[in-house]
Amino acid sequence: MEQRIECEIIDSVAVVTLQRPDKHNALDMAMFKAIIAVQKRLAKQHELRGVILTGAGVDFCTGIDVKSLLSDAKQAAKLLWKWWPGQANMAQRVSTGWRDLPVPVMAVLHGKVWGGGLQIALGADFRYGQPDCTLSVMEGRWGLLPDMGGNLAMREQMNQDQALWLAMSADVIDAEQAKAQGLLTELCDDPMALAQQKMAELLQRSPDALAATKRLYRRHGVPKSGRMLAAETFSQWRLVLGKNQRIAVAKQQGKERDYLPRQSW
Amino acid sequence: MEQRIECEIIDSVAVVTLQRPDKHNALDMAMFKAIIAVQKRLAKQHELRGVILTGAGVDFCTGIDVKSLLSDAKQAAKLLWKWWPGQANMAQRVSTGWRDLPVPVMAVLHGKVWGGGLQIALGADFRYGQPDCTLSVMEGRWGLLPDMGGNLAMREQMNQDQALWLAMSADVIDAEQAKAQGLLTELCDDPMALAQQKMAELLQRSPDALAATKRLYRRHGVPKSGRMLAAETFSQWRLVLGKNQRIAVAKQQGKERDYLPRQSW
Amino acid sequence: MEQRIECEIIDSVAVVTLQRPDKHNALDMAMFKAIIAVQKRLAKQHELRGVILTGAGVDFCTGIDVKSLLSDAKQAAKLLWKWWPGQANMAQRVSTGWRDLPVPVMAVLHGKVWGGGLQIALGADFRYGQPDCTLSVMEGRWGLLPDMGGNLAMREQMNQDQALWLAMSADVIDAEQAKAQGLLTELCDDPMALAQQKMAELLQRSPDALAATKRLYRRHGVPKSGRMLAAETFSQWRLVLGKNQRIAVAKQQGKERDYLPRQSW
Repeated sequence: MEQRIECEIIDSVAVVTLQRPDKHNALDMAMFKAIIAVQKRLAKQHELRGVILTGAGVDFCTGIDVKSLLSDAKQAAKLLWKWWPGQANMAQRVSTGWRDLPVPVMAVLHGKVWGGGLQIALGADFRYGQPDCTLSVMEGRWGLLPDMGGNLAMREQMNQDQALWLAMSADVIDAEQAKAQGLLTELCDDPMALAQQKMAELLQRSPDALAATKRLYRRHGVPKSGRMLAAETFSQWRLVLGKNQRIAVAKQQGKERDYLPRQSW
Repeated sequence: MEQRIECEIIDSVAVVTLQRPDKHNALDMAMFKAIIAVQKRLAKQHELRGVILTGAGVDFCTGIDVKSLLSDAKQAAKLLWKWWPGQANMAQRVSTGWRDLPVPVMAVLHGKVWGGGLQIALGADFRYGQPDCTLSVMEGRWGLLPDMGGNLAMREQMNQDQALWLAMSADVIDAEQAKAQGLLTELCDDPMALAQQKMAELLQRSPDALAATKRLYRRHGVPKSGRMLAAETFSQWRLVLGKNQRIAVAKQQGKERDYLPRQSW
Repeated sequence: MEQRIECEIIDSVAVVTLQRPDKHNALDMAMFKAIIAVQKRLAKQHELRGVILTGAGVDFCTGIDVKSLLSDAKQAAKLLWKWWPGQANMAQRVSTGWRDLPVPVMAVLHGKVWGGGLQIALGADFRYGQPDCTLSVMEGRWGLLPDMGGNLAMREQMNQDQALWLAMSADVIDAEQAKAQGLLTELCDDPMALAQQKMAELLQRSPDALAATKRLYRRHGVPKSGRMLAAETFSQWRLVLGKNQRIAVAKQQGKERDYLPRQSW
């Protein structure tokens, strides 16, 4: 199950590495399950002091492995299933699961941080990026909206015009822009070294104080997260069932299609 | 009715131009009605893909045409009337109407963007400004608070100390400051060309995905907008009925007056 | 009672000076009481137009006078007592009391603005700092979270990753960083002169318009402040009663101790 993920715990800090470098760490069903399994496992370890997230190979993560996921409709449905609306589904939990962990989580970013990859990074508390990394909310290209929970961080971290632009346009931005807009916490040549240094600093603090502080900011920093998670998913279902989403996919594949008039929103 | 506004639809994008250049596009009753009429008309067009807002002449809009509006008390009351508190009144709808439109709305700004003019621009999703433009929350000069809905964007876009300063002081800031503080999305020599290029990019995306994304951010990005709209209006009524508001007007007219002690707030 | 505070009212503007320079204006029980007493007194003065907060001596305020406060457990309990959770206790009121005053409040900062000192400054509407000033959310060093209400401003003013970092790490940042992150409104060589100039500008505005505008932003700018204040205090009690807090203190005193596994949060 967890062959997609490497999780090494050194001095109470888990270094979690996305391990599918030949596919640029794209998210297939096994990857989703592996991330959630590792989150669950780490949540139980009260000795754990922090998490550093990284990706093997040339990219952090290029997003959803669409081909693999669409090959099995039952799998895809499972990914989006929720028992109640405000809950996070599997697709959201690969991002929000890091928010819920009561330890500091740092994402170390390089290469492409696109689509689902960016959503995962947005679940971390801090994002340290290399100058070569590029970020994109990729979902718009497929006629979708980002529905993996990263919107929670985008409303906390960014001017809302810039957040809306990234979500609407699916533009790819470089590390400089991402830093200026607040998506990257720090930009430096060796973000792994920076993360380790920052984590060492936090190890000097009480694990309870860190957990309490993180919870305070996550729960009270912004209004009802559950409603936003519910709205993401509900809107995504409407998009997936609509015709324009299929037209968007056709356009991405180079076919000449015109969009239909929009539905009532 | 709509002689104050020019609305040209080219390739499914509406270019809406404030057309009262001899009065610097100041907002009289006819202008309020014309903007709301055009918003209503555009909201019904499911083929519409976007809106670009601009102003004819040397300024985008210098705000309320006070002389014209105060000449008819019944008109002014109509402007501020609401059927229920959380609803937007006419004064607010010239701004919030753009937020409610399910297509991207871009404001192209030049010259003075003052008072009601800034409020209209704050209703747009993106604000592209020329280096010569100046912005001001002008209402403070008249002993009022800004009550046209622009506060919604000011709490999403800016550090709250800077937002509060602009609203309290009624300072005029230049384009550089506005960009640094987050009021302008982009600053460039030809913001109309930029808006058209950005809009062309969004035309590649599904109209449903854009509408869903905009709604997600507008509804869940910040807490209960309705309550803020209600509070704006209620506070404004108290100010208008108070004596210090009349003193503020007298001071603006160069008369020597002292403010009375403030009411209980 | 108020020997800790000097309050001089000149032209309807109160200049409130923390007056305990030999102790770097550290907050003992007398200081807490003096600040709250002066807030109460100022709140009743409807002629008051503004407040400028400053500190005598080389530092604005280095935070809680731990030795003095811990010498009397009854005092400390009084500081944290609340009649109901959403209410501000004494520790929070030295910060939130400035938010509640219906006049503009400006903090003029120099030297160390640490711990409780930063919390007080965060209660002001505007923060003007000298290039030499340093800021720190100091509570983390003692195994605590910041629980004096300053979190309200940190969620309005800053990117949430930077806010969380300051609260978790208890890092000391310099004036440049504080300005870049949004903690300082302005950075200049003579912040007192700047505050006086800015205040003179606001004196041109109606006191009612200023009060109404401040209330609009304070009440509707961010979600339910009362719940965040309640969460701060509840979490702090749990921390104080836990063992890791005592270990954090021991570590600060140079003793070799290891943290216990964290509690469930």
